[in-house]
Amino acid sequence: MVSHRIELASEVSGVPVPENFRLAEAPMPEPGAGQVLVRSIWLGLDPYIRGAIAGSHMGHGKRAPGDPVPGRVLGEVIESRHAGLVAGDLVEGEMIWATHCVADGASLRKVDPALGPLSAAVGVLGMPGLTGWASCFELARPEAGDTVLVSAALGPVGSTVGQLSRIRGCKVIGTAGSAEKCRLAVERLGYDACVNYKDPDFADQLKAAAPNGIDYYHDNVGGLVLQTAFSQLALYGTVVLCGLMTSYNTGEAQSLPVGMSVGKRANIKGLVVYDFYDRWARFHARVAPFIADGRFRLIEDRAEGLAAAPQQFCRLMRGENVGKALVSVGAEPA
Amino acid sequence: MVSHRIELASEVSGVPVPENFRLAEAPMPEPGAGQVLVRSIWLGLDPYIRGAIAGSHMGHGKRAPGDPVPGRVLGEVIESRHAGLVAGDLVEGEMIWATHCVADGASLRKVDPALGPLSAAVGVLGMPGLTGWASCFELARPEAGDTVLVSAALGPVGSTVGQLSRIRGCKVIGTAGSAEKCRLAVERLGYDACVNYKDPDFADQLKAAAPNGIDYYHDNVGGLVLQTAFSQLALYGTVVLCGLMTSYNTGEAQSLPVGMSVGKRANIKGLVVYDFYDRWARFHARVAPFIADGRFRLIEDRAEGLAAAPQQFCRLMRGENVGKALVSVGAEPA
Repeated sequence: MVSHRIELASEVSGVPVPENFRLAEAPMPEPGAGQVLVRSIWLGLDPYIRGAIAGSHMGHGKRAPGDPVPGRVLGEVIESRHAGLVAGDLVEGEMIWATHCVADGASLRKVDPALGPLSAAVGVLGMPGLTGWASCFELARPEAGDTVLVSAALGPVGSTVGQLSRIRGCKVIGTAGSAEKCRLAVERLGYDACVNYKDPDFADQLKAAAPNGIDYYHDNVGGLVLQTAFSQLALYGTVVLCGLMTSYNTGEAQSLPVGMSVGKRANIKGLVVYDFYDRWARFHARVAPFIADGRFRLIEDRAEGLAAAPQQFCRLMRGENVGKALVSVGAEPA
Repeated sequence: MVSHRIELASEVSGVPVPENFRLAEAPMPEPGAGQVLVRSIWLGLDPYIRGAIAGSHMGHGKRAPGDPVPGRVLGEVIESRHAGLVAGDLVEGEMIWATHCVADGASLRKVDPALGPLSAAVGVLGMPGLTGWASCFELARPEAGDTVLVSAALGPVGSTVGQLSRIRGCKVIGTAGSAEKCRLAVERLGYDACVNYKDPDFADQLKAAAPNGIDYYHDNVGGLVLQTAFSQLALYGTVVLCGLMTSYNTGEAQSLPVGMSVGKRANIKGLVVYDFYDRWARFHARVAPFIADGRFRLIEDRAEGLAAAPQQFCRLMRGENVGKALVSVGAEPA
C-alpha cells in the first residue's frame, strides 16, 4: 500500500513558494510499539511551521530537502499499538503533511466529535484556539467594558481572542490585511470594528476605533501593528506577545520601547501555548458551548487534497488566507 | 530675611556639570493660603531630576535658566497656612533645592521621626523606598528561593528591592559600577553576590552568580545591564522596568526583544511610583521594623550645605555616589 506525503524540495528562503515543496509517494508507514497509524483527514496550517522548517521554533530542528513537513493533523486511527487508542478513534496532534502518519500515541489527543466540526480540532478547538483562550482567560483576563485589540482578527487564534472577549462584554477591535477581511470580522465574528493595517491612515483609524486606548492587545504579528498598538495602549494596558508573523518570513528581530512601557505601566506577557496543554478540558468546556449556540463562529479557508498543501501554506505566509488555513486530505468518517 | 536656593544657570546638555547650576539669594518666600513655609533639612537627589529639568519626566515642564531645581526635601514647617500642619511638623515632598521652600500643604506628607533616621524620609523610607517596595511586593512578588537581580544595588530603590527580597528568602544578586560598591553590597546589605557591570566579563560573572537564570529583575538603569539581565532571565521570569539611568543623560531610547519575551514567557511590568502613593502606611509598616531590628541597612552618600548640591547631583548622574545621594541643608531638630 502506498501513501503520499509532501517533502521539502529545497531550502526555504524568505517567503516560501510552492516550489520549495514536492509531493512524493512513500510506502505505507508502520507503527512501532506505542505508536498508531493515522489516516489524515484535516491538515491545519499555521505560521509556526515556517519557523519549524527553519529550525527556529522551539522543539524543532532545521529541515533539509527530502524531509517531511510538520503540521497539525486531525485523523482517524487505522492501526494502533498504543494501549489508549483503538482503530476508529479520532486524534489530533503534530504529525506531517501526509495522507498517512505514524505517531506516538502519547503525543496525540483524542478528539470528541461532539465538541464541534472536526476541522475545528486543528483550529479554534485545537492548538490555535487553546492559544487564544489562554491569552484571554489565563493571561490578560479582560473585564467587561475593556477595549481589546486583536491582530490577525480572522485567524483561529485571533478569532478566539476576539470572540471570547466579545462574549465577555469587551469592546473588540480587529486588524486584518484587506477590506474584505475587515468586513467579515465585523459581520461574521461580531468585532465592533476592524482596521486594515495596510491603509496609510491605519494609526488614525485605530485611534478612532479605540479613542480611550487599548486595554488588552493580543499580538499575533509584531511589526507595524504591534508598534502602533503599543503606542495606543491605555495606562495599565496588557500586551500578550504570541506570534511574530512579520518575522517568520524575514527573521527580522522585533523590539518594544522600554521608556513607553514604564510610562504606560504596561503589562507585557509572553505566551507559549505548550504551557497550557494540561488545560484542554477547561478550554473546551468554555468554548464548545459558544460554538454550539452560535455565539462563536468559524471562518475557514479550505483547500482540497494533499497536493494543494504547499500552495495553501504559501498563501497563509503571504497573508492571503481568509480564516483558518485548512487542507482536506481525506474523507470525514460517515 | 534671606534664603538661598540653587537655580539653573544654563541649559543642561548630556551629563550635567556643576556650571549648569548657581547658588542665588532670594527673599524669604511667603506661604499663601493652604501653603506652608518649610526649613529644609535633607535634600534627596534622584535621577528623575535630570528628566524633570529637561521636561521629560511626567508632570514636569522644561526648566529654563533662572528657574529653581526640583527635588525631594525633608524639612520642618516653620509657618503654616494649611489646616493639617503646624509649625514644628516634619514634612517631606517635592520642593526645590533651597534652604527654605513654600509648598502646598496638601502636596506634603507628614513624617514620623520614630520610623527611622530623618534622612531616610527622602531615601529608603521615602519615594525611592516606596518604589522598591512596590516593585517587590506589589508587582513582582518573588518567592523564597527565587533568584533576584537588582541594578544600582546600593541606591535607595535597589537596596530596598535587594534587602526586602533577601529578607523574603530570595537569592539576591546586585549590579553596581565599581568593585568597592560591589563589596559594600555584599558586606553591608547582604547581597549574595554583586557584579560590576563595567567588567568586560560582566555577562559571564552574572551567569556564574545566577546559573539557573534570573526569576525577577528590577531594572533601574536600562542599557547593557537590562539587555544582559533579559538574556539571562529564567523561563517565566519577571522584569520590572522602573528607571532608565542610561537614558537620562543621553535621551537614548531603549528597547526589549519581542521574540525572546515570547520564548521566555517573560512577564514585563512598567512601574511608576506615583501609582502607589495611597500605600505609604502599608509600606512603612513593612519596612520600618526591619530598619529598627538591623536587618535592613542604609547606605548614604552625604554632602554638606546647599552649595554642594550641584556637585553632588553631578556625581549621582555620573554614577559616582555610593548609596543614597543626600545634601544636608539644615540642622535636624534637637
